[in-house]
Amino acid sequence: MRPMVRVNFSNARLYRTVTQAPAVFRPAFSTSARSNYASSKYVTAFTADKYPDLQRNPSFKKLSEDDITYFRSILAPFSLSQDEEDLEVFNNDWLQKYRGQSKLVLKPSSTEQVSKILKYCGGVPVFDEIVISTANMNAVRSFDTVSGALVCDAGCILEVLDNYLAERGYIMPLDLGAKGSCHIGGNVATNAGGLRLLRYGSLHGTVLGLEVVLPDGTVLDNLSTLRKDNTGYDLKQLFIGSEGTLGIITGVSILSPKRSKAINVALLGLNTFDQVQSAFKRSKEELSEILSAFEFWDRASIDLVKEHLAAGANNPLQSAHDFYVLIETSGSNKDHDDEKLGSYLEGLMGDDIVQDGVVAQDTTQVRNLWAIREGIPEACSKSGAVYKYDISMPVPVLYQMVEDMRDRLEKAGAVGDGKLVKSVIGYGHVGDGNLHLNVAAHGYTKEVTDLIEPFVYEWTAKHAGSISAEHGLGLMKASHLHYSKSPSMIGLMKRFKQLIDPNGIMNPYKYLP
Amino acid sequence: MRPMVRVNFSNARLYRTVTQAPAVFRPAFSTSARSNYASSKYVTAFTADKYPDLQRNPSFKKLSEDDITYFRSILAPFSLSQDEEDLEVFNNDWLQKYRGQSKLVLKPSSTEQVSKILKYCGGVPVFDEIVISTANMNAVRSFDTVSGALVCDAGCILEVLDNYLAERGYIMPLDLGAKGSCHIGGNVATNAGGLRLLRYGSLHGTVLGLEVVLPDGTVLDNLSTLRKDNTGYDLKQLFIGSEGTLGIITGVSILSPKRSKAINVALLGLNTFDQVQSAFKRSKEELSEILSAFEFWDRASIDLVKEHLAAGANNPLQSAHDFYVLIETSGSNKDHDDEKLGSYLEGLMGDDIVQDGVVAQDTTQVRNLWAIREGIPEACSKSGAVYKYDISMPVPVLYQMVEDMRDRLEKAGAVGDGKLVKSVIGYGHVGDGNLHLNVAAHGYTKEVTDLIEPFVYEWTAKHAGSISAEHGLGLMKASHLHYSKSPSMIGLMKRFKQLIDPNGIMNPYKYLP
Repeated sequence: MRPMVRVNFSNARLYRTVTQAPAVFRPAFSTSARSNYASSKYVTAFTADKYPDLQRNPSFKKLSEDDITYFRSILAPFSLSQDEEDLEVFNNDWLQKYRGQSKLVLKPSSTEQVSKILKYCGGVPVFDEIVISTANMNAVRSFDTVSGALVCDAGCILEVLDNYLAERGYIMPLDLGAKGSCHIGGNVATNAGGLRLLRYGSLHGTVLGLEVVLPDGTVLDNLSTLRKDNTGYDLKQLFIGSEGTLGIITGVSILSPKRSKAINVALLGLNTFDQVQSAFKRSKEELSEILSAFEFWDRASIDLVKEHLAAGANNPLQSAHDFYVLIETSGSNKDHDDEKLGSYLEGLMGDDIVQDGVVAQDTTQVRNLWAIREGIPEACSKSGAVYKYDISMPVPVLYQMVEDMRDRLEKAGAVGDGKLVKSVIGYGHVGDGNLHLNVAAHGYTKEVTDLIEPFVYEWTAKHAGSISAEHGLGLMKASHLHYSKSPSMIGLMKRFKQLIDPNGIMNPYKYLP
Repeated sequence: MRPMVRVNFSNARLYRTVTQAPAVFRPAFSTSARSNYASSKYVTAFTADKYPDLQRNPSFKKLSEDDITYFRSILAPFSLSQDEEDLEVFNNDWLQKYRGQSKLVLKPSSTEQVSKILKYCGGVPVFDEIVISTANMNAVRSFDTVSGALVCDAGCILEVLDNYLAERGYIMPLDLGAKGSCHIGGNVATNAGGLRLLRYGSLHGTVLGLEVVLPDGTVLDNLSTLRKDNTGYDLKQLFIGSEGTLGIITGVSILSPKRSKAINVALLGLNTFDQVQSAFKRSKEELSEILSAFEFWDRASIDLVKEHLAAGANNPLQSAHDFYVLIETSGSNKDHDDEKLGSYLEGLMGDDIVQDGVVAQDTTQVRNLWAIREGIPEACSKSGAVYKYDISMPVPVLYQMVEDMRDRLEKAGAVGDGKLVKSVIGYGHVGDGNLHLNVAAHGYTKEVTDLIEPFVYEWTAKHAGSISAEHGLGLMKASHLHYSKSPSMIGLMKRFKQLIDPNGIMNPYKYLP
């Protein structure tokens, strides 16, 4: 038996702003997240204690000195740590909901080292598994200025890549609040959605190739830079969104679009979600090819941002509204875009779809408006424990979920001062039919969980939605997969997992029920 | 042992314009292709005779009367045929290169029937296997006017779907010359690229869900209409481009974009491929979000179109050019698009990148210009036997392949009147780095094949290209897969095939070496 591994994605969900954030990027956001983490009010219980049903796989061995000696022999100095403080960031998630007991983190600096580690590994319990971080694999391997194909190591930080491309007139096809710390390999492994999906589509379309180390150490070299390639099964697709359960992504080839010369951002205040939908339908008609984001949030969301973040002061709208919409356009001709946006907004105001609105006049204002939207998850987590749900649904019923949940919790007498729940908020990507439902509570308790679940999953299944639009499954939703996938689908997933990782050493206990 | 099946994709590659083309769609093109097929100068040899190395799998049984009786019992009347004339279209490819000996075609009209057929099947030789056509499964199941998600049967014809969407203000995200006859299920099974990929991306991004019948009859029900869904491995991706070797696609859910209000098409004449590249780079800068196609062809291509097709008369450019470029823009504001395109073209003319050019003034002219480009494959096939190669490469070396091939064949004394080869032509999708290299010859002979192959594959591998950009592998390229994929990739592909189709009944002898 040999040690089992856990991949450190450093991705939005697991490590939103905690790890590897260089001070130069979004310092305010990084810092606040760090301090949030540091000034923790809660001591998170070990996941092993919280989930007594989760039994250690007896076929996994315990980590030994011999294992450590071997890893030291193949890694560069300082690429291995057993230090408790170093490990803290990997053993805790940013929501302080989960806490592992890993005693070892490895930071390989090459694909070959990753391959050697996996070849060696074979089993250790979930509570002291080996963490592999790709943070040291952070080089751009190539960039094609004609096609926009970027090839890089998995540990490159999303914002670093976006800045690299900006200098060359290109843009990363994805963007998310955690850009300053998340790794591109983690983005791909979790199929991150984010703020640009509406315009540039999902990673299943934009990722051109992957380099993946399989559990037996085999390197799958599929770092194609071609936009089209119909030679055999498109194997890379299986690893996109597999959350490290099939292999470790070490390299990524991705198609970057040209960066738009003109960016406009507008913030609108609306009375109802019906109006949000009308504004969205019209934006598809009138803004069409220049529309690059259509985000919304509710009054409860902005209240939290105002309470907890500096960005709360960014809201330029005078009076309060029940709904807010942030619209972004990106195009190649500023005059044309201004004209399209102006005429679209005039139409909305004229038809009383929108009550109030502003258009950013410079890049600072653009950034400030985005900071409100991007600050919502952080503001929510600052208010205590957060139950986060990330749901895909047909747009017409998108907000009904929030109302029904609020109703349910209020009827149960769980909401208000001194009660279990502080606030139920809804926000998300209207353009993608993606709602983020957050319930801010005073702590993670069985009582609150039972009020929310399985209600939220049943509601979603009833409306033909998905219980995870972009956040993935992890440990939390593995056992709820059946709400979104049929037995035949889950059966085939398990056969794939068994085929590629027969010993189950990759991110065990997670993803599949 | 039970009968083995072959899926009839009715897709671009296999049955470009032969089957199921309703007379109302592109009658000229359909008719000419039909007559081309009917007036065949060649009697295609049986593939079984032409490939003596291809041995019948001894574990497959021969079709018996009992099998036929069973199939009759589960299918609607007239959904089964053993008639030789009915079968001719399925046993021959449109290039008259391959000829099978299937004695039975089944046309199920429901997913359940497909499932029953596959559950029953298990083995018959490649030379008389069962053909399954999805032509009778051709209903639109649902369309969401807010999101643009279309769900339909696999046997729906691409152009029928596009017309259906046009009435609702939407557009299919893919388009190809064979639209009047090809099935959406075949498009997905072969991961068709086509003319809109530059704008809307590949099917890996636009297909939202699939319904697939596995070789054991299991129905994989993954017809999601959600734009985002991160619950488990994205299994549908494996079937996109698997050419029927893993299962039969019976239903497709696809995201359709809004149809653009304004369409512009320009035809340009240029002197060199360097100029083609300059024009392309500038189009990405200046036309950016409204660019929807950037196609090119060479002088030899237009010569063939002029010789064989009515569309040859459509060329409005006075003098001959070594290269032609067709640019299409699609946007939401005609004035804005005209201005962008006008200023782009003026720049090209001013800088002597383009020698001549026209912009279509109405929809008839738009159609006529497209007819030149879409007519090239047909014109080429009319001139005799055609060796077709479909290569992905970095744009800078895209045309060098054609020049090197022409050089090679000329040096071998193979080109000219009374020689083996009539013409070497190059055309394709510059925007996707996709070259179609066609060699028109007097017949399919070993001599010509040996002059072209493996040279063309080695050249492609040397330039980090793919030997099949969008046409797939089939029988022809299965054994050449190693030029584009590593042993570890091919090894994993074979393990997937073995896992899902352990008896090898789906499209045997093809796809994988």
